[in-house]
Amino acid sequence: MTPHHDGSALYVSDPAPDLGDTVTVWVRVPAGAGVSMVWARSTPDGEPRFAMSSVDREAPGEVWWRAEVEVHNPVTNYRFLLVDAAGRYRWLTGRGVVAHDVSDATDFRLVAYPPPPAWHADSVVYQIFPDRFARSAAARDRQVPGWAIPCAWDDPVIGSGPQTPIQFYGGDLDGIAGHLDHIEALGANAVYLTPIFPAPSNHRYNASSFDQVDPLLGGDAALHRLAKALHDRGIRLIGDLTTNHTGHTHPWVAEKSLYYVDDSGRYEAWQGFPDLPKLNWGSPELRRRFLDPADGVATRWLRDLDGWRVDVANMTGRLRGDDYNHEVAAALRAAVPGALLLAEHTHDATGDLDRDGWQGTMNHAGFTRPLWTWLRSPDLDLSHFLGVPVPVPRWGGPAVLATMREFAARVSWRSLTNSWNLLGSHDTPRIRTVVRDPGRGEVAAGLLATLPGVPMIFAGDELGLQGVNGEDARRPMPWADRSTWDTATLHRYRALVGLRRAQPALRSGGLRIEHVDEDVLAFWRETPAQRLLVLARRASGAPVPVPHRGTNLYGGAALDGYLPGDGPTLQVWVVAD
Amino acid sequence: MTPHHDGSALYVSDPAPDLGDTVTVWVRVPAGAGVSMVWARSTPDGEPRFAMSSVDREAPGEVWWRAEVEVHNPVTNYRFLLVDAAGRYRWLTGRGVVAHDVSDATDFRLVAYPPPPAWHADSVVYQIFPDRFARSAAARDRQVPGWAIPCAWDDPVIGSGPQTPIQFYGGDLDGIAGHLDHIEALGANAVYLTPIFPAPSNHRYNASSFDQVDPLLGGDAALHRLAKALHDRGIRLIGDLTTNHTGHTHPWVAEKSLYYVDDSGRYEAWQGFPDLPKLNWGSPELRRRFLDPADGVATRWLRDLDGWRVDVANMTGRLRGDDYNHEVAAALRAAVPGALLLAEHTHDATGDLDRDGWQGTMNHAGFTRPLWTWLRSPDLDLSHFLGVPVPVPRWGGPAVLATMREFAARVSWRSLTNSWNLLGSHDTPRIRTVVRDPGRGEVAAGLLATLPGVPMIFAGDELGLQGVNGEDARRPMPWADRSTWDTATLHRYRALVGLRRAQPALRSGGLRIEHVDEDVLAFWRETPAQRLLVLARRASGAPVPVPHRGTNLYGGAALDGYLPGDGPTLQVWVVAD
Repeated sequence: MTPHHDGSALYVSDPAPDLGDTVTVWVRVPAGAGVSMVWARSTPDGEPRFAMSSVDREAPGEVWWRAEVEVHNPVTNYRFLLVDAAGRYRWLTGRGVVAHDVSDATDFRLVAYPPPPAWHADSVVYQIFPDRFARSAAARDRQVPGWAIPCAWDDPVIGSGPQTPIQFYGGDLDGIAGHLDHIEALGANAVYLTPIFPAPSNHRYNASSFDQVDPLLGGDAALHRLAKALHDRGIRLIGDLTTNHTGHTHPWVAEKSLYYVDDSGRYEAWQGFPDLPKLNWGSPELRRRFLDPADGVATRWLRDLDGWRVDVANMTGRLRGDDYNHEVAAALRAAVPGALLLAEHTHDATGDLDRDGWQGTMNHAGFTRPLWTWLRSPDLDLSHFLGVPVPVPRWGGPAVLATMREFAARVSWRSLTNSWNLLGSHDTPRIRTVVRDPGRGEVAAGLLATLPGVPMIFAGDELGLQGVNGEDARRPMPWADRSTWDTATLHRYRALVGLRRAQPALRSGGLRIEHVDEDVLAFWRETPAQRLLVLARRASGAPVPVPHRGTNLYGGAALDGYLPGDGPTLQVWVVAD
Repeated sequence: MTPHHDGSALYVSDPAPDLGDTVTVWVRVPAGAGVSMVWARSTPDGEPRFAMSSVDREAPGEVWWRAEVEVHNPVTNYRFLLVDAAGRYRWLTGRGVVAHDVSDATDFRLVAYPPPPAWHADSVVYQIFPDRFARSAAARDRQVPGWAIPCAWDDPVIGSGPQTPIQFYGGDLDGIAGHLDHIEALGANAVYLTPIFPAPSNHRYNASSFDQVDPLLGGDAALHRLAKALHDRGIRLIGDLTTNHTGHTHPWVAEKSLYYVDDSGRYEAWQGFPDLPKLNWGSPELRRRFLDPADGVATRWLRDLDGWRVDVANMTGRLRGDDYNHEVAAALRAAVPGALLLAEHTHDATGDLDRDGWQGTMNHAGFTRPLWTWLRSPDLDLSHFLGVPVPVPRWGGPAVLATMREFAARVSWRSLTNSWNLLGSHDTPRIRTVVRDPGRGEVAAGLLATLPGVPMIFAGDELGLQGVNGEDARRPMPWADRSTWDTATLHRYRALVGLRRAQPALRSGGLRIEHVDEDVLAFWRETPAQRLLVLARRASGAPVPVPHRGTNLYGGAALDGYLPGDGPTLQVWVVAD
């Protein structure tokens, strides 16, 4: 054990302070760590200030130091100076204990901006790609649009090529409403829908309107019905807002000032795709259309939605010399107080979080990708992960932990615990294809359920669906043929989601590493009231001695002085010692 | 040797690109490093883009890869993906080669904002604290102000207490003009003056006016004379601009809207000192007074000055919920095109650089402090360094290098090479007091002369002056008694400054580590035309074998297959192999 601090309730007295508040912070120092004095350093108004800590209490084998930090600025960074008896020091920041001077980039952070909605950090999100989830009776009678290739529900998905975006399966919102028992039984308490506005594609990221819900999905009334049915069960509903671009068939396209158009009439477009012209957030009129309290795109749908996942948030408002990203994020947040605003970002959102805009991100960089590198099948050749041009490597536990810490250390605990952890999505291969082995799949789902961050489950993962890329992953849910379901996986997902929802420490507890090696990640999730030890093991190996005993909550193995050696496995124990 | 890249001309085709330019970047890979493919990754508009590299050329023992990076945004970050024959990869960023995924925070950077003045990166700056540098004949006749304790030139400086800021020695600008031969002989080609506006203190950071040069210094005419005399010798002149606060005797204080004043009439003040009321950059009128092209504080003195060092730049415009820092920096830069704008920052400026404001910083964090930790006297008890409440530790070479790299990796090469490296200043103990031993002092001066960054020499360091803190360090220059001069140190400073000015590689060459251990830092400074190897050794030890021979440029030792073991020492060789 090394000296530890994180932003959870064990170590911070107030996770949502107001500007000017004083917050108590604690550092947990193992006996024998050679710490005889602790200072807390913050940088109010840009200048370092050191507050001396004092011993708050001693526990078996450890000393808890406490200090007061003033939340002097909206984002107050702080770190600890650990001094030994000879006056030598080390720093404790979000990257851990370091024996040389370090920049402020990984300081801990207290954030005084209004917090995200309280329900969010306790959520388990279920992602639905509407065209592929379920058809209502009405859906079967709707006329297929002219651009579409009509598909029967069990037709194979074409994963790449010109037909990919126009295969039309016809799932709709009432179809979703017909399967709420499944969602509720899984334990999800939030549903995230990829876009539901009209568009000439099955993914609908190329919107042709924001004024109505796609009639092919059942229209506005179907959205209202679905929202009400979900809310009646205590399940939130999150939409998908495309702020970076529209489709080229959107009527706004006639108004060039809303887009980036060059002198020759060429529209700037997302990744160069001409059917996705890029919006120009320098336009006050564009801002009004999104933000107007009465009829803005971002505001008016909150009659039914509890918030937005923001598509391509990383590029929104950014083009060459323009960077309106933070302005857009802040204006959106101001326009939708009380709602969730979560930014898609595929490589490094840390620079855009902890401001007064996006409340979290889809944590591809700090969760999905490192998890894949640890659990991917040894004989898999996944040539791409979100654009990286080399196969996803197979790395051991230390590299995985280093990657997770790399990204976690650059954001506040609040942003970390309000970001979505995902094993995959409509934009990636399916986790089952990545790990191949159901045992490693259980470890993946187990880490999803036990690490900090909101679990997001792409509908179908719980049934063991496969897919070699994002498009192939959009396979229709096999409602009609339960023989294809991987029921063992479904039961594991239900158990793990249930465990997370039942155990506060898995949602809000601190994160402290107990042991890491090539094949093992073992960590604590701890609140003032509860200590849980989680063992994730990707392969069998020697049992690891630990001075703990516990009561098993998941996985069935005993904790009796050893982390057991069988694997792959995911075990959770409550520890009272 | 590990794969290497930095922002110097060996590795980047254009250090000052325009937006939209394409820049060629090279990576240098040792043979046997297991690299069979290299990709350059940038993130245009926030989305990763990978450009495949190709082998540009092979040199003995190494392969040079080249790729094209589009300067798509004003700050274009990029990094390299090094792939081995088995498809495994590592990243190369400013922190070096890392075998796990990392955030963008240490990516290399191309900056398309207008560059700092071209003379600056080639400068050696000589810092003068006017009250203590030299008195002209006229100075001796001036009336001592009422607030002051008049001091004879050889009276001892009182390093702390109420008399400290009011000991008045009466140095003036014509006094400086009388010693330009000394400055020129040292090799400095820029002079930085701490404040010269009227103020009721010897340091003048508490200005009572910005409308005139202090008559006690000779007034406006003396500044003009000094500037002309310096410029005639090709020496630049840099002033000190206090943007964070004025003195409480400044007439602006009557205008409360220019300051932060609470309901009870209390003025917010720097570090709580009531004689330093803090300026409110939310005030348009304050901005006008600093920035007006005709008579702004920042602009009007550029008739004589070549730029500004900006005092307390780290706190400027920052107070609780307000953060105008970047706005102020950008507005200042726009108001003084062609001039230098260098930000004081004592702990971590990296977040404020590489924008369109400050062009560099005083590199306390990435140079001064790590250098001190390496070269400080083993039996020294320096209890404070700029507010850190524990003694400066004594660390070995690896920790020192890690600290330097920590900060360098977070800024562009341009910002690094336009920041000031200093061994000490009027705000710190004197380097001679820190290192005690003149041999280690030579190593310190040698690193100042040979590492990337503009050397800044606090007047008197070259004579071996001492001082236990910043105030004590402000000892008058002992012009009258040359017997007190450490002439060996003076000759070393002259030789080292001369070497830097004579050797382009020391000013603009890349930086690549050859060897580091507890007592040795050996590194290359390389341009396309020149390879210099620098050995800094804080103590004697075993010679270190290196496969190189060279011609000595400084220090006198041979490079003949070994880095010599005698120390402390600073050696520079030109290597042709």
